[in-house]
Amino acid sequence: MPSISIAEELAKKQREISISEFFERNKQILGYDSATKALLTAVKEGVDNSLDAGADADILPDILVEVRKIDKDEFVVVVEDNGPGIVKKEVANVFGRLLYGSRFFSRAQRRGQQGLGISGAVMYGQITTGKPTKIRSKVAEQDVAYEIELILDTKKNRPNVVEEDFVVWERAHGTRVEIPLKGRYNAGKQSIPEYLKATAIVNPHARITYRPPEGEEIVFERATEDLPPKTKEIPPHPHGIELGTLMAMMKETKSYKLAAFLEEEFVRVSSRVAKEICDAAGLDPDKKPKSLVLEEAKALHDAMQSAKLMSPPTDCLSPIGERLIKRGLKNVLGNLRPEFYAPPLTRDPAVYSGNPFQVEVGIVYGGDLPPDQPIEVLRFANRVPLLYQAGGCALTQAVANVDWRRYGLEQRGGSGLPFGPAIVLVHLCSTKVPYTSESKEAVATADEIMTELDLALKEAGRRLKTHLTKKAHRAKTKEKFEIVQLILPRIADKSAKIVNKKVPVLDATITKIMGVVWVDEDIAYDKKAKRHTVTLNVHNFTAAGKKLNLHLLLPRGIQPKSIEPKPAEVRDDGKITWELKRIDSVAKASISFVLEGLDEAEYDESDIYVSGINPGLVIGAEPLPGDWELNYAEFEGEEAPAAEAEEEGEIDYDETEEALDDE
Amino acid sequence: MPSISIAEELAKKQREISISEFFERNKQILGYDSATKALLTAVKEGVDNSLDAGADADILPDILVEVRKIDKDEFVVVVEDNGPGIVKKEVANVFGRLLYGSRFFSRAQRRGQQGLGISGAVMYGQITTGKPTKIRSKVAEQDVAYEIELILDTKKNRPNVVEEDFVVWERAHGTRVEIPLKGRYNAGKQSIPEYLKATAIVNPHARITYRPPEGEEIVFERATEDLPPKTKEIPPHPHGIELGTLMAMMKETKSYKLAAFLEEEFVRVSSRVAKEICDAAGLDPDKKPKSLVLEEAKALHDAMQSAKLMSPPTDCLSPIGERLIKRGLKNVLGNLRPEFYAPPLTRDPAVYSGNPFQVEVGIVYGGDLPPDQPIEVLRFANRVPLLYQAGGCALTQAVANVDWRRYGLEQRGGSGLPFGPAIVLVHLCSTKVPYTSESKEAVATADEIMTELDLALKEAGRRLKTHLTKKAHRAKTKEKFEIVQLILPRIADKSAKIVNKKVPVLDATITKIMGVVWVDEDIAYDKKAKRHTVTLNVHNFTAAGKKLNLHLLLPRGIQPKSIEPKPAEVRDDGKITWELKRIDSVAKASISFVLEGLDEAEYDESDIYVSGINPGLVIGAEPLPGDWELNYAEFEGEEAPAAEAEEEGEIDYDETEEALDDE
Repeated sequence: MPSISIAEELAKKQREISISEFFERNKQILGYDSATKALLTAVKEGVDNSLDAGADADILPDILVEVRKIDKDEFVVVVEDNGPGIVKKEVANVFGRLLYGSRFFSRAQRRGQQGLGISGAVMYGQITTGKPTKIRSKVAEQDVAYEIELILDTKKNRPNVVEEDFVVWERAHGTRVEIPLKGRYNAGKQSIPEYLKATAIVNPHARITYRPPEGEEIVFERATEDLPPKTKEIPPHPHGIELGTLMAMMKETKSYKLAAFLEEEFVRVSSRVAKEICDAAGLDPDKKPKSLVLEEAKALHDAMQSAKLMSPPTDCLSPIGERLIKRGLKNVLGNLRPEFYAPPLTRDPAVYSGNPFQVEVGIVYGGDLPPDQPIEVLRFANRVPLLYQAGGCALTQAVANVDWRRYGLEQRGGSGLPFGPAIVLVHLCSTKVPYTSESKEAVATADEIMTELDLALKEAGRRLKTHLTKKAHRAKTKEKFEIVQLILPRIADKSAKIVNKKVPVLDATITKIMGVVWVDEDIAYDKKAKRHTVTLNVHNFTAAGKKLNLHLLLPRGIQPKSIEPKPAEVRDDGKITWELKRIDSVAKASISFVLEGLDEAEYDESDIYVSGINPGLVIGAEPLPGDWELNYAEFEGEEAPAAEAEEEGEIDYDETEEALDDE
Repeated sequence: MPSISIAEELAKKQREISISEFFERNKQILGYDSATKALLTAVKEGVDNSLDAGADADILPDILVEVRKIDKDEFVVVVEDNGPGIVKKEVANVFGRLLYGSRFFSRAQRRGQQGLGISGAVMYGQITTGKPTKIRSKVAEQDVAYEIELILDTKKNRPNVVEEDFVVWERAHGTRVEIPLKGRYNAGKQSIPEYLKATAIVNPHARITYRPPEGEEIVFERATEDLPPKTKEIPPHPHGIELGTLMAMMKETKSYKLAAFLEEEFVRVSSRVAKEICDAAGLDPDKKPKSLVLEEAKALHDAMQSAKLMSPPTDCLSPIGERLIKRGLKNVLGNLRPEFYAPPLTRDPAVYSGNPFQVEVGIVYGGDLPPDQPIEVLRFANRVPLLYQAGGCALTQAVANVDWRRYGLEQRGGSGLPFGPAIVLVHLCSTKVPYTSESKEAVATADEIMTELDLALKEAGRRLKTHLTKKAHRAKTKEKFEIVQLILPRIADKSAKIVNKKVPVLDATITKIMGVVWVDEDIAYDKKAKRHTVTLNVHNFTAAGKKLNLHLLLPRGIQPKSIEPKPAEVRDDGKITWELKRIDSVAKASISFVLEGLDEAEYDESDIYVSGINPGLVIGAEPLPGDWELNYAEFEGEEAPAAEAEEEGEIDYDETEEALDDE
């Protein structure tokens, strides 16, 4: 009977593994699976910490990143910040102990949450070089900085301080870490400067200085002196919380009554809502939370899930915002000029497993972008660019799940990354981003997040499609215009000659053939003054006088100036409306205004809508959403645009032109 | 000065996070990111454990998997095995404590290694249902089984046993676990039966019974009574070990002398090699390992890396093997009949970070496979099918990195998953598979592994390409044959009539036009007897007599029988060689043999090679690798095949045929 000894033998091998032993053997899980990636990961962990430290203390971050080459495959990564510093007794723990930190239990949007990042970098450094990490930190009330060198004892997951000192440091407060590590330096894609640049774009309040191993120092200057609105910590939202987690909360709560527990430990639960939930669950609101048995807890959980509740407050989240998304996209383009920026969109916050989250999407299309490659997907989570594990990331998968053929991109079979001249930026921010691993390189596919991503991407796709349709429509009409304006005068000339009569005035004929209201725009930019001057012309190429309302959607938060003529309405959300006076046949109306303070690329096309007219007659503007049906009913009796006439074969431009060329 | 309070305030929030608290909040990292996946992950962890238990104890595994529906979104997953059982005092720890296990420090190929799998499932179950997990285990020397119900105390990461009993169990030994959990049942792709089927295929010694929530029980019968060769534990290999890890080993070793340390704690280091390494590092072999300073350790590390060492032994690894790869591919196909199985290949073991690993690849192509979709990639790691995170996995990425256009598949831009009628199976086995996360769904991209994958995939691609070229070549020659055999007799007939002479014998003319040696084969299969009868014909369609050697590569481990004529050599690696007697012009030679015990699909095309002849003359066989240059030099004087003549315009089949049709 061999198994007697085997079960006993196996039992002898059973033992607890410390978290640091685990990661020592699985360093790839922390993002150290190759020498190239190791350098970037260490930089990323340092910069994440520095940005979070600034956010914690309302300080505009000033961050120095330095990568020094020591040996052919050995480097030192230095990250230094002007954050609040770390008090002496915590320095060793923060850097020398895995799963130790201040942000794990906080429900606020932060880059770091796990207490694994910087201590993981320290551990990787010592595994590969045998050397300790040096840390210096100074808090405002101290005159000197505290400086240590430490090794992480991986058996015990405890810091082992090998040197300790106090040193003079010119900084008022801040932290500096120097990690020796094995690595390989790479300057291309997925490189440190690329990562820092992308980080600077979506964190425009930070100033980041980069000293590479060779070559010039690069400074990413801060683009604004305003701190992003401070994100607030919030308790969990009742929707999506797990039954077991709820039961654990009830075991530990200090509340004596169930209703109070709900009100105090969850967001969006007022005392009225708390009572309603208890009622729906058939439970006494005064019952002790600790006393609930499994069935009662289950009833409570069900009632919480089906309760109608407000979405979580948005002030725990810090989306990138439309302007910065556009700037981020522009930056990726470098000198390439695209044809079109789809208006970026930021969706309202939603909830998964009790955690609020928010999705943002931006698309840039055409122009100099390569038309024959898969589109590029730029991923961000909590304002951190994600450079690795694209294929395993929910953000990429959501893009691949959309049928982009419906929005004008090429995509074999209707799934997978589409081909075409486009870049898509996707940002997920949350009080808790569900990363697929501790390296925080990819987002897991939680159902609620996938739904929001899908909605956002499809909406962005529709915006792209609108542009492409408008473009195609305009191009077709323009072509017709040119033909008509070329041919008709020549026919008139020739006919007049033949019959020996005066050449007739053709304006009315041309308008009758065209039968459209044509809207075009001209945008001039003054670089010095950072001023856009926008002019819109509305040409009436129909046989009758026309009246219409014109609507524009301007970027939020921008006040248009020098508006001509006076608009009927200017709304806070950026919508501006003109009720134009009657435009006579073959006449035009003009509108102009000025936008100040934007980069050139931030306003390169107006979103133009019309109402009060049959929108089918209008080229260069879309029907105002919600207004369409009404318009059609109202104006059904009007003349059809010439496009239809052509299709019915009444006029054949080709033949006409040939005839003329025979002359 | 606000930062004084902030540094202090932050310090107050600093605390240690237990590993179970970490995973309670990051359950997606353990593979529980959706309700559907949760069920599969729990089953997978249970089955992994049961298979490993069988392997530990040399027991043919008999595993029961049951998924019971309790409520609309609540299930119980049961996994029961006939393994050695777990001794009483360890049961609670194994199931109720994260990072606790017996295999973490062992360097042998196992499914489980982390001590996170089954305890993670227990924790997910209680988080989502609030209920404990029930475990029953019996070791051979006990008459009764030990049964407990437990909850994992996530604050402390310790088991909390809520019920405990001894029960009678008919099994001699084994373990049974019943985990209640929230889930959603799915029967399609990435489903439990799919996973179990794939597992059964690559673990043919296991018998797996599956009871789904609804419908019939499914039994995956064992296909062999032979246990796979037992994998041995080995110490690390000196290549790829990190400096810091080496230093930690020297601190802890019980060896008093450096040379002894190297010899005892590394594989492939003999006492001679140990001395050589010490010499190369300029270190005294008798030096105490503990006494080495950083520079000395570094010198030792360098010397270890550059020492010429044997590859690690293969008996720590358990590859799937060519036969099972083919069977696995066949199984995925179901009723679809492919055109071609590229001979699967198993590469020799290599090393990354001191860990031996081995790569296997199989390809199936054409026939009924859908031609217009991305190819399917089947991923396996340590004989476990990987179903999720395909995009983030090194195995998929390696496939996408190959330029498959060179091997006859369609691939836009030469990277990304190619399109075409093909399935690629990739298996990585290692004493330590570097998973990207604790859910063990995807493999990280370690450089050495990527290199081996690339080599294996390209070799498989070449085999595919060889087949496609042979097929195209044969088709072209066959077409020519048919035309020549159709046209020449008609020309002869007609000419004879016109000039009123006898119709000439054309054999010599036809052979002169063809100028090839044609090899074809016929494979007959007797299903009952599981017998392949293979017949090869070598036709000499050249003007002169020909002598050649014919070589076949048969599957390893299969002895061909009834071989006719007697071969010159039969090698253990499956190579068999015939030295054929001179074949006269327009004559043929035949070869036949019998293979027994294979499934029909396991032998459907011979790998035929020739030597001793200008291989450019031969259709239906490849030049024997390494023999090519010699052949060409030797036979340069021979007549060129007719293909060239045609290209030079000497014969124009089309014109000839037209002329005849005019008759």
